[in-house]
Amino acid sequence: MQTEFNDWMTERQQGIEHALDEFLPDPKLAPARLHEAMRHAVLSGGKRIRPLLAYAAGEVFGATTQHVTVAACAVELVHAYSLVHDDLPCMDNDVLRRGKPTCHVAFGEATALLAGDSLQTLAFELLTHEGLAIPAVARLDMIRLLSQASGSRGMAGGQAIDLDSTGKSIELPELEMMHILKTGALIKASIQLGALCGKAPYPAATEALNRYAHAVGLAFQVIDDILDATTSTQDLGKTAGKDAAQNKSTYVTLLGIRHARELADDLHKQALAAIAPLPASQHLADLADLIMDRKS
Amino acid sequence: MQTEFNDWMTERQQGIEHALDEFLPDPKLAPARLHEAMRHAVLSGGKRIRPLLAYAAGEVFGATTQHVTVAACAVELVHAYSLVHDDLPCMDNDVLRRGKPTCHVAFGEATALLAGDSLQTLAFELLTHEGLAIPAVARLDMIRLLSQASGSRGMAGGQAIDLDSTGKSIELPELEMMHILKTGALIKASIQLGALCGKAPYPAATEALNRYAHAVGLAFQVIDDILDATTSTQDLGKTAGKDAAQNKSTYVTLLGIRHARELADDLHKQALAAIAPLPASQHLADLADLIMDRKS
Repeated sequence: MQTEFNDWMTERQQGIEHALDEFLPDPKLAPARLHEAMRHAVLSGGKRIRPLLAYAAGEVFGATTQHVTVAACAVELVHAYSLVHDDLPCMDNDVLRRGKPTCHVAFGEATALLAGDSLQTLAFELLTHEGLAIPAVARLDMIRLLSQASGSRGMAGGQAIDLDSTGKSIELPELEMMHILKTGALIKASIQLGALCGKAPYPAATEALNRYAHAVGLAFQVIDDILDATTSTQDLGKTAGKDAAQNKSTYVTLLGIRHARELADDLHKQALAAIAPLPASQHLADLADLIMDRKS
Repeated sequence: MQTEFNDWMTERQQGIEHALDEFLPDPKLAPARLHEAMRHAVLSGGKRIRPLLAYAAGEVFGATTQHVTVAACAVELVHAYSLVHDDLPCMDNDVLRRGKPTCHVAFGEATALLAGDSLQTLAFELLTHEGLAIPAVARLDMIRLLSQASGSRGMAGGQAIDLDSTGKSIELPELEMMHILKTGALIKASIQLGALCGKAPYPAATEALNRYAHAVGLAFQVIDDILDATTSTQDLGKTAGKDAAQNKSTYVTLLGIRHARELADDLHKQALAAIAPLPASQHLADLADLIMDRKS
């Protein structure tokens, strides 16, 4: 089982690396430095959790790997753009990402800003891709879902709330709302876009996927908070202990490690229960396990 | 004639202000500060040249004002996002825009960064608008054209080339290439999107519009360079004399004011000649005149 999942995952991770490499502008094309910065931001590793969720959700509705790849790349590009901008000095001012210098450290602030901007643009451009054998109406749905998930009422809005709350003590409901926007919205969109690559999802399945996405998105963040508090910078590949250093409220500061872990376990169970009735949902279940067990 | 054009323009400018106000997130909705920053960036004046070009191009193909409005707002949102990011300290570090404090001066750098990001996202979201009575395939074409015009091989690419060339002496062909990307691509997209709101443009018309767009886009920039060198900050509503202060190559530094003006006049004639055979192209001609005669 684990071997089957690992093979499935490795194959798709390789596919996504190849596709991202294809879709990103050639570094030989002008403006070369901007294109290098975009490639640095996207191709420097990463677990590709969002693309994997898109593939796994697509399987529930009979989508082939090939059909999902463009959507999977689009969500990963939005994720990569958000990391580049989030790492900038005016935001988190971080120097390390996936074990490598952040984009602005490697290319300067102005180029990193433009690289993030251009990665966002490229994500939407991909979804208009003429080779995508998906009806135009479904592609517009994907663009709508991805834009709503990443704009001011989604991911970017969550980052704004995060900014406002840094140094303040906030309560659990506000923390949850922030993460639902900041991380959860794009995770949910990854699953929704994957599903749209297959045959039209029926309402009960959409509802089940949304409940899975909600639980997995929050569990992801709870685990993130635990890792930030318990793992070394070297193992994490990004600066550890940042939350405490920035005096941020997290699941760990609000609940303590033990209760945070219990919350994550509970969300994990909710995620598995949500998709249990769905056919071909084994890889979604495996990914929920992976998100719980990750070490970085 | 001038009165008819002025009435036409005023009516559409009012329409676009109203529509932008509608489409931008309510400032009462969370995250309120981010939404205020987005509104500050978009609703603080501006001539709305790009939306006007979209309306005028739409008229050539029988598009109603109502049909063009969403596309017109989308291009203006991309323009507004680019100004917010362009004004940031790591880019142009400008404090004044349209006679008001720039977004990061009013709201801080981090919020301005996220506001620009969210404005770009909103532009793409608008084009998926369900109320848009335009076929899904044409809307995907719009999203493709807008993304290509604004990404690393369009507007953002032009800004990257501008960054790289600041302080260096560049020649006329490189200057032209930079402006074709930095300003011209979005102007061209405005015209293309407007045309797509009407009945399918025939190839000769598309070709004529592209020639008009090319000439008007460059003329716009030549006039910009002349205004930067000859107009006060107060009259311009943004910091004047920046090009000289940053030791930038411009049409004025490369050609001198008189020859730059001659080049603009020549481009103006090319623009008018390109659209002369097209029906209902009077407002495109009027807009070319306006771009030539503008004082800010």
